[in-house]
Amino acid sequence: MTADDRFVVATYVVEDEEKQLRKRADGIAIGLTVGSWTDLPAATQERMRPYCGRVEDITVEERLPDGRVRARIAIGYPVVNFPARIPALLTTVFGKLSMDGKIRLAGLHLPASFARAFPGPKFGAAGVRQVLGVHDRPLLMSIFKSCIGLPMDELVAAFTEQALGGADLIKDDEIFFNESLASPEDRVRAYREAARRTEAETGQRVLYAVNLTGPVTELRDRARRLAELGAGALLINAFAYGLDVLQALAEDPEVSVPLMAHPAVAGAMYAAPGYGISASVLFGQLLRLGGADIVIYPSPYGTVTLEAEESGQVLHHLRADNGLKPALPAPSAGIHPGLVPLLVRDYGMDVIVNAGGGIHGHPGGARAGARAFMAAIRAVVAGRSLREAAEDSPELAAAIQQWGVREA
Amino acid sequence: MTADDRFVVATYVVEDEEKQLRKRADGIAIGLTVGSWTDLPAATQERMRPYCGRVEDITVEERLPDGRVRARIAIGYPVVNFPARIPALLTTVFGKLSMDGKIRLAGLHLPASFARAFPGPKFGAAGVRQVLGVHDRPLLMSIFKSCIGLPMDELVAAFTEQALGGADLIKDDEIFFNESLASPEDRVRAYREAARRTEAETGQRVLYAVNLTGPVTELRDRARRLAELGAGALLINAFAYGLDVLQALAEDPEVSVPLMAHPAVAGAMYAAPGYGISASVLFGQLLRLGGADIVIYPSPYGTVTLEAEESGQVLHHLRADNGLKPALPAPSAGIHPGLVPLLVRDYGMDVIVNAGGGIHGHPGGARAGARAFMAAIRAVVAGRSLREAAEDSPELAAAIQQWGVREA
Repeated sequence: MTADDRFVVATYVVEDEEKQLRKRADGIAIGLTVGSWTDLPAATQERMRPYCGRVEDITVEERLPDGRVRARIAIGYPVVNFPARIPALLTTVFGKLSMDGKIRLAGLHLPASFARAFPGPKFGAAGVRQVLGVHDRPLLMSIFKSCIGLPMDELVAAFTEQALGGADLIKDDEIFFNESLASPEDRVRAYREAARRTEAETGQRVLYAVNLTGPVTELRDRARRLAELGAGALLINAFAYGLDVLQALAEDPEVSVPLMAHPAVAGAMYAAPGYGISASVLFGQLLRLGGADIVIYPSPYGTVTLEAEESGQVLHHLRADNGLKPALPAPSAGIHPGLVPLLVRDYGMDVIVNAGGGIHGHPGGARAGARAFMAAIRAVVAGRSLREAAEDSPELAAAIQQWGVREA
Repeated sequence: MTADDRFVVATYVVEDEEKQLRKRADGIAIGLTVGSWTDLPAATQERMRPYCGRVEDITVEERLPDGRVRARIAIGYPVVNFPARIPALLTTVFGKLSMDGKIRLAGLHLPASFARAFPGPKFGAAGVRQVLGVHDRPLLMSIFKSCIGLPMDELVAAFTEQALGGADLIKDDEIFFNESLASPEDRVRAYREAARRTEAETGQRVLYAVNLTGPVTELRDRARRLAELGAGALLINAFAYGLDVLQALAEDPEVSVPLMAHPAVAGAMYAAPGYGISASVLFGQLLRLGGADIVIYPSPYGTVTLEAEESGQVLHHLRADNGLKPALPAPSAGIHPGLVPLLVRDYGMDVIVNAGGGIHGHPGGARAGARAFMAAIRAVVAGRSLREAAEDSPELAAAIQQWGVREA
């Protein structure tokens, strides 16, 4: 183990008096590891040394009008202090510290050996493509809308429309918790049959991502059962349930389907400048470590947005060479067919085009909405412009009429 | 069920154009429940009506210099949409919405029937007192410091010092995850024996709150095992592991010890003004609903602080009459004996005086540190001033010498 392999390095952005920075950094390095140092007997210091944090770097980034500075402080935490589980990692590097006024956990650097101790994606981008048998184009995911209160036959009809339009994946709305009319098990069974019928008609495989809900103690059993019943993937509100739930599912060989992490509630942590935890840590690093095969997170295009630079960092981490399989990005919110060229420019071919309103809000309905997206995807892969492709696709033409087009 | 019993009402603080507020509120009420409304057929509307959210209130609070306003928007969400589990509640009321720019979930109003569907504290304030046999004074909790890397015999010695000083509860450091030298099971066994010895000497019961760590799928079994082995309470990093873990433990009759929730990582959600989720929702409402008997959260006195008004709101919710047992507040950070009068003034007698540095940093060591606190607690209960009490307690005198005193 090299010296660098011994520390997880967390980088924080703080605002403080410049002359306080060193003391503050020392306080973090010691306070969040061995608790105290200078007042310990020499023999105790010797024994605790392997567990003691260290200040890696202090960089002043900006002088503020009030005389203080904005600075980055990097602290190394010995990996022996915690196991490779996200709650332990987060509690150590941003537990008490999260409550220390204006401070943001901006970045994490994990030693390769520590990162590899996490499961990471079971399928990864290539694995999801293999399940679908689609290797040469962006994937299309359709988001179920208006589910609560509908009886199963209407849900099946809605599923079928999305599938016939060409969606590769169809995901539940993340707020679908009511089980009185259609439990997750019922939906998986019913949509599995619907998918068989549409696959026979179109020749295209479709995966249903079912919202994994219930008491946390029952999630693993339910995940196994839903996978066994034929779920195509599991949608997990990972931040609401806790990121260790994701990891537990990723580590379980009986949960034999891709895991799709939803960003719900994460905005409470990343949205405020200067506070909380950066989106690149949450979406790019933690979700991938925990084993999300597909990571849904805000696109930089819609109304619910993520700043372009931060969005780029997420993408970097989802694919960075860290010994784990790369995850598939599903940038979301405000996606319509006219954005597909931009999506492919910004994310490459290994992207999930994820749409709700952009499919269901199509003037011709959800089937036409999915068709418009597939026409856009095929056009981009073929190097054609959308306006040219729209000449062969009335659905794409109607979508462009409605939402416009942004060629890359 | 009355009309008011049918809705959970979430209040948000937003900044927007005044003329946009109604549209935005409608968008939330519909978007986070039934998905769409005006474009649905009348028959579908009729069927979905019970699941549709509604705008309860819009109040402009302040006109901002840029012409926009700061406003409170209250949205009612039908309780039939989600079960009484925190991840479902949070995903619905602040899932996608948490990513909608500058917005804060400031408050929650839960119908009594919905609140009572949560477990709430198993012991509550009175139950914790009953376990300890202490009914007439604030409780003293000592926080273990500098644990990582110490062998069991030194940990036992440290435990014994804190117990002999008079601590009612001794809690692990929340960052204690390393199990190589002393697993939670080993600690519970060893401290149980140490507690027997100190109880024989002092006649005072002491509860050890062990840090509940490990994969989320194993936490319930471990909690049962630790309770069985003689743990006095369980310390839970509830925000890192997920609040549903707390609820699952509270609902499990075999977890027969009080649950103590630690606020680690919560600052990532509440610390930024105008963003995230208020501390009163997180600490005051969700932790109590989930079943924390003891809620550790920042005091308004130390360096890691919570604003006094927000802190008061937390306390209000921990004790509010909602059909669940009240939880015990353990305001933390920067607590020293000289603050006890202020603590009792602000929190009443039903408070846990929770100290780490204020005990271990005492010039006479941890035992003297705990004694100083107990002398301060007894003085306040007897209506004596600390300076007067210090005449009979050299430990309190030394503490006052070191940290001063703030009479209420």
